Amino acid sequence: MDNRLRHVCTQCKTIHYQNPRIVAGTLPFYEDKVLLCKRAIEPRLGYWTLPAGFMENEETTPNAAIRETLEEANARVHLGQLISIIDVPHISQVHMFFAAELADLNYSSGPESLEVELFAEADIPWDELAFPTVKRTLKHFLKAKENNVLIRDIELLVDYIDFKDRIKK
Amino acid sequence: MDNRLRHVCTQCKTIHYQNPRIVAGTLPFYEDKVLLCKRAIEPRLGYWTLPAGFMENEETTPNAAIRETLEEANARVHLGQLISIIDVPHISQVHMFFAAELADLNYSSGPESLEVELFAEADIPWDELAFPTVKRTLKHFLKAKENNVLIRDIELLVDYIDFKDRIKK
Ligand SMILES: [Zn+2]
Ligand SMILES: [Zn+2]
Repeated sequence: MDNRLRHVCTQCKTIHYQNPRIVAGTLPFYEDKVLLCKRAIEPRLGYWTLPAGFMENEETTPNAAIRETLEEANARVHLGQLISIIDVPHISQVHMFFAAELADLNYSSGPESLEVELFAEADIPWDELAFPTVKRTLKHFLKAKENNVLIRDIELLVDYIDFKDRIKK
Repeated sequence: MDNRLRHVCTQCKTIHYQNPRIVAGTLPFYEDKVLLCKRAIEPRLGYWTLPAGFMENEETTPNAAIRETLEEANARVHLGQLISIIDVPHISQVHMFFAAELADLNYSSGPESLEVELFAEADIPWDELAFPTVKRTLKHFLKAKENNVLIRDIELLVDYIDFKDRIKK
C-alpha cells in the first residue's frame, strides 16, 4: 500500500495521500416515474443525472445519498436499498446508488440543477444522460420493475463486467 | 458540498480535499474454515483481522480486495460476491468485504501480518479480533453458512443499524 504514487504538494513538497472517492446518490421514484436533474455545472452541464455527489467525511453512505438528493433536487425521500455499486477506475471513483421513494412532490432545482423532473420510462432522455453509471443504474432498476421485482429484491449491480474480468483463477 | 471543512496544508496553506476512504478486503474461506491474519502493524497490532486495506487510485473494489489479500496473506483467491458494506463514519471510512475461496493452501504472512491461519468456526478468536467490521462480517457470513445459504445468496450487510436510524420519514 505504501508503494503507490502520492500527491506531492507543488508548493511545499509535502506528501498528501490521494484515494478513490465515493459518489453516493439516489434513484428517486414516484409511482412509475423516476426523478432526474439537469446539471447546472460541469462536467456535463445540461445533461440529465440522478442526484448524487461526493461523500463527505464523518457521514454514512445512506446519509450522503439523502443529503445530495436534498441539495440537488430539494427532494425528501424514503431511502430504499442499495441498487448499484459501480467502479469507475479511470477517474478513481466508486458510484453507489440507492433506490429512494419520494416523500412528497415538492422537489425543485438546487444550485447544481437547471431543472428537476419526473420521467415516465418512455420519456427518459437516454441520449442526454450525463454519466454511464447513471444510465446503467437506471436500466438495471427499470429492468427489475419490468419483471415485477420488488424494490427490496432488486439484485445489487456490482460492476459485474469488470468484476468477472478480474477474478483470478 | 463546497461548504465542508477542508484540509489546509500547514506548510503552504494550500487547500487539499479530504474524503472518506474505502477499505476493501476479503473473507477467504476453505471448506469450513476462514482465513485470518494477525496484524504486525498498528492499529491493533497482534489482533486478528481479515485481509483488507485502503483502496488505491485507478483500481476497482474487487481488485483492491484481491490485491490486499495477496499482500497480507500471500493468498490467491477466487473472488465471490460482496457480503458487507459497513460505514465507519467516525473515522471517515467505508469497509467492503467480498467472500473469496482460497485457490490453494500456500498462504503465508505478508509484511503486515505476524501470522496467517485458517480457523474453524469453533476456534475463531472472537476476543482478539482487530475491528468491529471484521467481527460483524464474520458473524454475518457464518450465520448464512449455518442456515445453509449459498455464498452467492448471502444477503449483503449494508450497515443496517445506522441505515435504519437515518431513513427520514
Ligand atoms: Zn500541501
Ligand atoms: Zn504545501
